[in-house]
Amino acid sequence: MRPYSGLHTPPVKKEGIGRPLRFSIPRENKVVEGIEDAIHRMGIRDIKIFPSALFPVHEHLIPYIEDGTISWIEGSLNGPLGRFASEGGLLPHPVVLRTHGGRTRAIEAGDVVIDVAFLAASAADPAGNMTGAVGPSAFGAAGFAFADAWYARKVVVVTDNIVPYPCTPISIPSTCVDVVAKVDRIGDPEGIGWGTTQITRDPRMLMVARRVIKVLEAAGYLKNGFSFQAGAGGTSLAVVKFLGDYFKERGLVASFAMGGTTGYVVRMLDEGTLQAILDAQAFDLKAIESLTKNPNHMEVSHHHFGNPHTGGAITHQQTACFLGATEIDVDFNVNVNTHSDGYLLHGTGGHTDAAVGSEVTIITAPLIRGRIPVIRERVTTITTPGEAVDVVVTDHGVAVNPRREDLLKSLKKTDLPVVDIEDLKRKALSLVGKTIEPKLGDEVIAVVEYRTGEILDSVFRVLK
Amino acid sequence: MRPYSGLHTPPVKKEGIGRPLRFSIPRENKVVEGIEDAIHRMGIRDIKIFPSALFPVHEHLIPYIEDGTISWIEGSLNGPLGRFASEGGLLPHPVVLRTHGGRTRAIEAGDVVIDVAFLAASAADPAGNMTGAVGPSAFGAAGFAFADAWYARKVVVVTDNIVPYPCTPISIPSTCVDVVAKVDRIGDPEGIGWGTTQITRDPRMLMVARRVIKVLEAAGYLKNGFSFQAGAGGTSLAVVKFLGDYFKERGLVASFAMGGTTGYVVRMLDEGTLQAILDAQAFDLKAIESLTKNPNHMEVSHHHFGNPHTGGAITHQQTACFLGATEIDVDFNVNVNTHSDGYLLHGTGGHTDAAVGSEVTIITAPLIRGRIPVIRERVTTITTPGEAVDVVVTDHGVAVNPRREDLLKSLKKTDLPVVDIEDLKRKALSLVGKTIEPKLGDEVIAVVEYRTGEILDSVFRVLK
Repeated sequence: MRPYSGLHTPPVKKEGIGRPLRFSIPRENKVVEGIEDAIHRMGIRDIKIFPSALFPVHEHLIPYIEDGTISWIEGSLNGPLGRFASEGGLLPHPVVLRTHGGRTRAIEAGDVVIDVAFLAASAADPAGNMTGAVGPSAFGAAGFAFADAWYARKVVVVTDNIVPYPCTPISIPSTCVDVVAKVDRIGDPEGIGWGTTQITRDPRMLMVARRVIKVLEAAGYLKNGFSFQAGAGGTSLAVVKFLGDYFKERGLVASFAMGGTTGYVVRMLDEGTLQAILDAQAFDLKAIESLTKNPNHMEVSHHHFGNPHTGGAITHQQTACFLGATEIDVDFNVNVNTHSDGYLLHGTGGHTDAAVGSEVTIITAPLIRGRIPVIRERVTTITTPGEAVDVVVTDHGVAVNPRREDLLKSLKKTDLPVVDIEDLKRKALSLVGKTIEPKLGDEVIAVVEYRTGEILDSVFRVLK
Repeated sequence: MRPYSGLHTPPVKKEGIGRPLRFSIPRENKVVEGIEDAIHRMGIRDIKIFPSALFPVHEHLIPYIEDGTISWIEGSLNGPLGRFASEGGLLPHPVVLRTHGGRTRAIEAGDVVIDVAFLAASAADPAGNMTGAVGPSAFGAAGFAFADAWYARKVVVVTDNIVPYPCTPISIPSTCVDVVAKVDRIGDPEGIGWGTTQITRDPRMLMVARRVIKVLEAAGYLKNGFSFQAGAGGTSLAVVKFLGDYFKERGLVASFAMGGTTGYVVRMLDEGTLQAILDAQAFDLKAIESLTKNPNHMEVSHHHFGNPHTGGAITHQQTACFLGATEIDVDFNVNVNTHSDGYLLHGTGGHTDAAVGSEVTIITAPLIRGRIPVIRERVTTITTPGEAVDVVVTDHGVAVNPRREDLLKSLKKTDLPVVDIEDLKRKALSLVGKTIEPKLGDEVIAVVEYRTGEILDSVFRVLK
């Protein structure tokens, strides 16, 4: 593993690993009943898992980790599994935290070889052509599934909805699929959008969102052709809502939004203030519905979204992104993985991919959260390097990265409370009295892999 | 090179070659003016060409072959270039003739490494996202381009229509693209459909087409869920027209048609007698228009269409295909490449892929063509092995491959003129007096590579 050496690092190798060659005979039927049959058919044991992310719904995996059935996790941890890992629960291998783009890079470069990929489908035909766009359990764009489908040694499509050949539309073609496992239900679509995909109701954060619009306006970004990506946090969603209002009021038309897609972005497409949605993942039910209805709402892979070792990721074309943080430091480094007590509680998602690619990266956060300063001398963990961050917008002021002199100049002409980030740090400290310091052991429980494959930071065990 | 050993041969290797890893920085603009600039930028010389097929419009390449600029061709030859090769014009390497599915197999297995792919686009954005579906020079599905885009060391998108980012829809993503070359015009859309895509007006062949419908009906194939692929020849098109009439009259609904897509197939989709079109290539302008309009008209790659070394090609799911022939022999081997005088004048297209995959493969042909028997003791060149052919329908009778006893039994119950293929051979000979024998040299000017990569036959130099 190489240490981090800058935002843009070319691949070490000239070519990726080969895709498995398969072999099939006419009219082959790949359907088996249940995942157990699929696993039995392939003889799987001693499991290393490579999810895009694990959430509270995956808490039931903890006993399998404790008994050694699962011996290694490479993927984002949110909530209980992160807490478990922070307390030393995951031995002997540190968890590897990657961005969405970095995850596909790792697959394509051969850094991670997937023996078996289990890919959920809301509709699949007996040959394995599949989609997430239609069916009773439709979940929208299947952006994560593409790289896994291309490179995994064996691919199992898991579905509760076998449709006649050919599945319509087709996201992943039959050519990549070995087994179609029929289950009773792949999940609850009502669960999509739970948690992070509600607009904030916190008046402080609504003010922050309005300030983001003012920053973009003052800097001259809000015009025809503007493009953006928003995180799934409530403040980012508020920014998108205000952005939609702004474009509608002025008769402007944005170029594209990269999703994680929400109803707020769909509204812009429907109202004609946005020309296209590039969608790798639905954040709510409106996003799912729009994908099948509007030809300008296009499904894309996370390879296309953010793999830096390709001829051109979508994130590299974005004008702006609005992202959250658990902590931000005076060098503009952003932490979204750990809390200030050291606990690993959140995945990276597309945070770094979006921040590095966008022309202007805006981080929104309250100055303090609970009794904890968000703006600090040093972040507990670096998720996204400060050199990829342009503006930090808080309820107590707006700080501009000194390397963006142009932005600083524009913003100083406005009534926005532009301050030095050191001032924000001091203000936060004065409000809470003192920062907490996490009690950490020497043991590395996770590493933050930068999107190009270099190691950016380590996460340490929390001592209780 | 291995000799042919049967219809279904697994891959020799477990995995294909790696895809090139690229590297791009935000807001990179890949546009250059003209192909010359693109070539200059990459330093290309000593050219081996790997087209899907060369046609009469490519006759101007002959001087480049004569002066050694082009030293090797792997791809189908139609017309003048085939004639030139037959007369020994292409030294020192024999031409390699592949099926559409076999061509993608060869790319993915690394049998052919493409240094530079030039991919036409009727719309492309400055990052290289591209499509053939829209724009003044729209040509429809870009099925051929996918494997080239995935594996070529350098990919040049050639377009006469640069659109703002993001191109909509996207067939090939920017991640695969190195250069976008802007030219005045990529071609003449009016030329699509020239030549082979007119329905036959020959009363003999219209009768043949009607007999095909009777064969399918008698064998019980014409029911809901029927799927098919038709070649681009006039008789195959007539079959599709009659099939559309048949389904409409009886209120039946076919499942899918695999295209090469024509207006006759689009008519079925529009009339509701067909549920989906899987489209790798447009054969006429109606196919182009439908692709952008109807969500059940889906673009697919030729990898998905017919690569046998994958988890499942579309051709492997077809009920029936209707294909042409220059010659058919008493073992049901079919020749579509050479004429009986030995000249290599036609490409293979998807002929073998369709024949091997379909439940029932029907070859249509006149008994004699000019003064030349089409049904013969031995074909001049084997394009598609007889074991993949079920029925031969001619103006003088219908012959069933003896391995299809079930079909023979069904057809004998009808008023169709069911005959032994030996009878057809004798009848043809009696009509023309005697067959011509080509005058061939020892020199192999082309090899027929079976779709799984084995050598099926050789094409020899014609002595003038």
